[in-house]
Amino acid sequence: MKITATKENLLFGVSAVQKAVNTKNTLAILTCIKIEAKGDHLYFTATDLEVGIQCKVPAEVLTEGITVVPARYFTEIVRKLPDSVITLELIQDNELMIRYENSELNLKTMAADEFPQLPEVEGEHKLTIEAAKIKQMVKQIVFACSTDENRPLFTGVLCEIDNNEIRMISTDTHRLALKRESLQNKQKKNFSFIVPAKILAEMARLIQDEEAFCEMNIAKNLATFTIDNIQIVCRLFDGQFPNYQQVIPSQYTLKIRTSTKALQEAVERISLFSLDNSSNTIHLEIEKNSLKLFSQSELGQGHEQILINTEGDPVKIAFNYRYLLDVFRVIDDEELTIEFTGPLSPGIIRPVQSDTFLYLVLPVRC
Amino acid sequence: MKITATKENLLFGVSAVQKAVNTKNTLAILTCIKIEAKGDHLYFTATDLEVGIQCKVPAEVLTEGITVVPARYFTEIVRKLPDSVITLELIQDNELMIRYENSELNLKTMAADEFPQLPEVEGEHKLTIEAAKIKQMVKQIVFACSTDENRPLFTGVLCEIDNNEIRMISTDTHRLALKRESLQNKQKKNFSFIVPAKILAEMARLIQDEEAFCEMNIAKNLATFTIDNIQIVCRLFDGQFPNYQQVIPSQYTLKIRTSTKALQEAVERISLFSLDNSSNTIHLEIEKNSLKLFSQSELGQGHEQILINTEGDPVKIAFNYRYLLDVFRVIDDEELTIEFTGPLSPGIIRPVQSDTFLYLVLPVRC
Repeated sequence: MKITATKENLLFGVSAVQKAVNTKNTLAILTCIKIEAKGDHLYFTATDLEVGIQCKVPAEVLTEGITVVPARYFTEIVRKLPDSVITLELIQDNELMIRYENSELNLKTMAADEFPQLPEVEGEHKLTIEAAKIKQMVKQIVFACSTDENRPLFTGVLCEIDNNEIRMISTDTHRLALKRESLQNKQKKNFSFIVPAKILAEMARLIQDEEAFCEMNIAKNLATFTIDNIQIVCRLFDGQFPNYQQVIPSQYTLKIRTSTKALQEAVERISLFSLDNSSNTIHLEIEKNSLKLFSQSELGQGHEQILINTEGDPVKIAFNYRYLLDVFRVIDDEELTIEFTGPLSPGIIRPVQSDTFLYLVLPVRC
Repeated sequence: MKITATKENLLFGVSAVQKAVNTKNTLAILTCIKIEAKGDHLYFTATDLEVGIQCKVPAEVLTEGITVVPARYFTEIVRKLPDSVITLELIQDNELMIRYENSELNLKTMAADEFPQLPEVEGEHKLTIEAAKIKQMVKQIVFACSTDENRPLFTGVLCEIDNNEIRMISTDTHRLALKRESLQNKQKKNFSFIVPAKILAEMARLIQDEEAFCEMNIAKNLATFTIDNIQIVCRLFDGQFPNYQQVIPSQYTLKIRTSTKALQEAVERISLFSLDNSSNTIHLEIEKNSLKLFSQSELGQGHEQILINTEGDPVKIAFNYRYLLDVFRVIDDEELTIEFTGPLSPGIIRPVQSDTFLYLVLPVRC
C-alpha cells in the first residue's frame, strides 16, 4: 500500500471512525483502525463489534493495499502532522511509514486479516431522509433514554415509520420524548426498529453537511446508515417497546403557556435548593396566571413566581427538576405549553410553534 | 445587614475569592465565604488558612453587617440570578434572604464570628509593579515549579528584588525558569522571598486590567498582594532556595537558533513515540545547520529534520520532551536559541528578542 493524501482528509477519516474504537478493549485488534487504499480513496474502518463505522476520503492511491494501525497513536500523529501532503506507505509488511517534508515516522501495524469484517446489510427496508431532520430529531429525544444497561431496551430509541411520517420515541420510564417528521416512504411499508441511543447520537454528531441525506437500510437485527462518505453499521435491539401511546393523556384539566427561557432560569435557580437532597424535587403551584416554584432543603429555601397564561383548574404538583431542565435545553421555541390532569398525572410539555415534539414527565409524589 | 447590588458585581466578588475556598475542608466554616457590608461596599472574603482572598465591590448598603454563606451554593445562586438589582438581607440572624423581581431565596448562614480573621501584614518591604508585568512573569515561570508537596520549597517561586530589578525563579530540580523585569525600588533595599506557586498563578488569573498595579507588602513569613479591589494574603516559605546562579553555565560550545513553532511542532510529533515509555525521552542530533529529532518505542519510531542556524560543535543529546514542550508554550518570540556545552550538560533556552527570560533543562542520560 502506498498513497498520498492531505492532512485534512486523513484527519477527517480518523475522526469520523473514532467512536467505534474501544481503546480499552482487551482484544488489541479492536483498538485499531483499518486503512484500505482502493481506487481513488482511503477507507478508514473501526468497530467494537457492536457498531462499525467506515469513512472514505479522497487520496492518490499509488499501490492498493490494507493495513491496521493502533487508533490512539495514529490519530495523535495525524492531528499533529503539518498541513502538507502526507505519504503513507506500508513497508516490511508490518510498518506504516508516514512521510512529510524532511521527516518520517514508522508506526508498527497489525495483521490486516485479523480485523473483523463489517457485516453486509441487505435490509428489506430502505429509506432516505434529510440529514438535518435526523440531527434535530436525535437532539430532541436522545437525552430521555435510559443509561441503565440492565434494561437495554430503554437505552435504545424506537423509530417508527408510519406512512409518510417517521417518529422517534425515547423513554427511561420516568419521562418520554417523542419527535415526528415527514418522510418520503417510497416503499409504502410501515415498520419499526430500535436503535441504540449512543449510535444515533454519534450519527447526529457526524452530520456536518445539513444538506446531506441519510440513507437507512434496515434488516431484522442490523441496520446501516449512510451519510455522504460515512457509513455506520449497527445491531438493532430485539424486543417489544412499551405501548407509549397508552401513557400519553388525550385530555387535560389545566394548560399553561409560558416563556421557555423564563421558566428554565427559574427552575435552575430554585433547583439549587435541591442540590443536597437525592429526590431533586421542585414544587409547582399553579393558579390563575401565576406559577409559583418552590423547593427547600437543609441549605434553605427558594420561592419564585412567574406570570403565565393559564387555562383550566389550579394544580399543585412536584417534579424532578432534572427532567424539566433536560427538555428546556432542547426546545428552541420561545414559548412552551404544559398540560396537567392532576397532581399524580404526567405533565405534557410541547413547544408552542410546533406540533412535532412532545415530552411527558411523571410527577414526584410528596 | 441589608444591601442592594447588581448581579454582575456580586458575581465578580464571589468569583475573585473562589480559589481560597476549599470546598472539601472538614471545617465547615472554611467552605464558606464571609460577606461584609460596610460604607459603599460589600467585602467578600475566603480563606483556607494558607491563603486569604478579599474582594470589594460597590453596593448600596442600607444596613451594615456581616454574614457567612456556604461558598458552593451561594456561588451557584449568584451565577444563576437574573441580570437585575439584587437585594441581600440577613434575617433572623441565620438566613440570608436573596430577593429579585418577584422572587426570594433564603439561604442558611453560619455564625460570622467563627470565620477566621485574615492576618494584618505590616511588612518592612513595600513595592509597586505593573500588574501586566507580573502576569507575564508568572506565566513564564510558574510551570517549572515542582508539585511534590514533600519538597515544599520547590513548589514555591523565588522572588528576588535586586536594585531596580525583580527576578522570579522556579525549579523542580530537573529544569529551571528565570524571568527578570525592571522595577522602581523606592526603598532601595534588596531582599528575596519565596511565594507558593499556586498563589502566584491565582494572582495572575485575577489580573483582568492590564493597566492596574500590584502592590506588594512583604513581611518575614507573610505577604499581601493588592491589585485594584482584590487583596491576597498568603504565607511565604521559610527556607534557603538553592543557589541557582551556580548551575547556569556561563559559556557554551554550541548555540542553535530556530523557529519556536517549527521546533515545537516537531517535538510534539516525534514525542508521540515516547507515549508508551516512562522516560519521555527524545533524542536530538545537531550538526551544521541541521537538527535531527528522533525517538522510538514499541510503537515504532520517528525521525524529523529541521533546518536551523548553528554556531559551534555538533552534539548528540537527549531530553524529556515534556520539559521542552512546557517552555515552547510560554515563549511568545518567533525564534529561540538553545546553548549546549556537551551531552551531559544542561541546555539553555532563550527567546531571541528578549534577554529577560532563560530556561535551563537537564539532559537525560542514555
